[in-house]
Amino acid sequence: MKNSNNKPAILETGTDNFGECPLPITGHETVQLAHGSGGKMMNQLIDRLFLWAFDNEKLNQLDDQAVLSIKGGRLAFSTDSFVIDPIFFPGGDIGELAVNGTVNDVSMCGAKPLYLSAGFIIEEGFPLIDLKRIVISMGEAAAKAGVKIVTGDTKVVNKGQCDKVFINTAGIGLLEGDYEISSHNLQPGDNLLVNGSVADHGMAVLSRREGLAFDMPIESDTAALNGLVSQLLQAGGDAIHAMRDPTRGGLAATLNEFAINSNVGIKIAQTRVPLKPEVAGACEILGLDPFYVANEGKLVVAVAEERTQAVLAAMQAHELGADAAIIGKVVAEDNGRVHVQTRIGAWRILDMLVGEQLPRIC
Amino acid sequence: MKNSNNKPAILETGTDNFGECPLPITGHETVQLAHGSGGKMMNQLIDRLFLWAFDNEKLNQLDDQAVLSIKGGRLAFSTDSFVIDPIFFPGGDIGELAVNGTVNDVSMCGAKPLYLSAGFIIEEGFPLIDLKRIVISMGEAAAKAGVKIVTGDTKVVNKGQCDKVFINTAGIGLLEGDYEISSHNLQPGDNLLVNGSVADHGMAVLSRREGLAFDMPIESDTAALNGLVSQLLQAGGDAIHAMRDPTRGGLAATLNEFAINSNVGIKIAQTRVPLKPEVAGACEILGLDPFYVANEGKLVVAVAEERTQAVLAAMQAHELGADAAIIGKVVAEDNGRVHVQTRIGAWRILDMLVGEQLPRIC
Repeated sequence: MKNSNNKPAILETGTDNFGECPLPITGHETVQLAHGSGGKMMNQLIDRLFLWAFDNEKLNQLDDQAVLSIKGGRLAFSTDSFVIDPIFFPGGDIGELAVNGTVNDVSMCGAKPLYLSAGFIIEEGFPLIDLKRIVISMGEAAAKAGVKIVTGDTKVVNKGQCDKVFINTAGIGLLEGDYEISSHNLQPGDNLLVNGSVADHGMAVLSRREGLAFDMPIESDTAALNGLVSQLLQAGGDAIHAMRDPTRGGLAATLNEFAINSNVGIKIAQTRVPLKPEVAGACEILGLDPFYVANEGKLVVAVAEERTQAVLAAMQAHELGADAAIIGKVVAEDNGRVHVQTRIGAWRILDMLVGEQLPRIC
Repeated sequence: MKNSNNKPAILETGTDNFGECPLPITGHETVQLAHGSGGKMMNQLIDRLFLWAFDNEKLNQLDDQAVLSIKGGRLAFSTDSFVIDPIFFPGGDIGELAVNGTVNDVSMCGAKPLYLSAGFIIEEGFPLIDLKRIVISMGEAAAKAGVKIVTGDTKVVNKGQCDKVFINTAGIGLLEGDYEISSHNLQPGDNLLVNGSVADHGMAVLSRREGLAFDMPIESDTAALNGLVSQLLQAGGDAIHAMRDPTRGGLAATLNEFAINSNVGIKIAQTRVPLKPEVAGACEILGLDPFYVANEGKLVVAVAEERTQAVLAAMQAHELGADAAIIGKVVAEDNGRVHVQTRIGAWRILDMLVGEQLPRIC
């Protein structure tokens, strides 16, 4: 394990598959909050460092889960660490979020999530009653999603060396159909659907964090989407080309990843994107664009024209899809770019987030 | 996801499968460093909270990995978070450790590790050159162990909200034989073998942390054990009843878990346990018992008498087992207890660690 290291020599010369040496990776010498934003800087860090060092075709797909062939079956495997602040927020808590988040990442390739791991990093002095509340919440979320937490790990660090509690979950799911659902698989002509209103989670967390009170309280949309996904697959079959849950970086990040990974253009109508009035109001007060705000119970689906109405109907029939809508279309022009038609009919480019908007949102 | 919560009511009444209500879980109201020690308090937290809330037969096994039947095959699944301080230490770094640690946990049931996930929690302001060094180290460790890092996640928290970098890895492996290797499977008459000297990792980290310099520098033993395990399985077959890597809590924790989970007694000869003179010296100076100090490249194997010599020979023939030794025996008396014969021939009980000895050792 020692001194077998010859990669740095190559690195220092500044030549590798990604062109320039990964350092400075993003024009910075230290890690910035924006490196974890779900936006451009995070993608640069992933491209220029992680993909370079871990290079393999599964990781290089850059989907939120890896699809692995083992013993003739296909498994989905995904992980997420949760560092949300506050740990209890309107509509949920870090434990429920940690279960739902990984259930959703596993589901987005069409897999049925089965098993989770849970790794806790806890600050010394953290109240056990809060830990109990979080762990009960995880157990209930797992039961509701139909998955089992089968292995885990607990680390405790000295007071001040982490903030309360961080939770990592990894998940395994089984791909039962021969779906090829991936951010690389969008086709011009596909319609883009979302299962409900955007920006609820981010604004619920932010309003709690900032101590803001609104007439209509905003609740996180945290939910396990695997039941909904199963209905969508029945309705859409292989006409479903891509699915993703627009978490960090919001709808904008997901749509841009779709456009870039599939090398297509995407056109969205702003007025078609469901947005609760109270969330729109909070965004306006805080100067935030809801397209960049995190969701935790939403998915964006790209589906071929001929199955679009069936998939929309399946969404609307599900408790997590009552407000589902067709929000836009995949086109064969302006590849790699997302355009939004604003309320007044003008078009603007919806780029990825460049800096950091809301640290510790999930 | 809301208000479907009926478990707390049961909890508050103080009746559940684990007898007393989990609170106070361990006589404390807040999380103590000892809750992450690998010793008694961690086991109480796991028994009284995690097993209670997540209750399922896989987790209840309390092995370091879950064995899952999927599509007719059997998979091993494990996770660990790494919070070691310092992140660079003699003989390794947090990245290499994070890969090897999970490779080892997956291997200990006889599975062949295949895929890892990697979740990073990084402190804002962390030097990118250090991150690069860690990530390169992970890539190399994965290549050396023959596993692929196929999915990942990056979170960045504000400066001061975590200490430098924490890494979670989860791993999936394939069980190719019909082994039933588990801490529940030790049999009276089994011999206990270890593949080399104990306490190297803990003392390497501690001496770096405390700024101690010794004439003979102490290096961590961090290594992926899957290659060695494969050789042991060839030599021992189903005569291998249990394997575990004695990390946090050291040899004492592993032997006690063996004795408790299999309801057997364990007798160890102190003079048989390999210990480097420089490590013994450092332990003496710092007042530490090497049986409680963490290892990261060691495994303890329980093997039936008739295959013991074959397994020992296979260990000694491997680069990670040159100093392998038979250290003791499983007996049908004093069930649940570990006894050590000291240098002068007396017997003492080797209990689990009660408090915390070395926080952030892995």
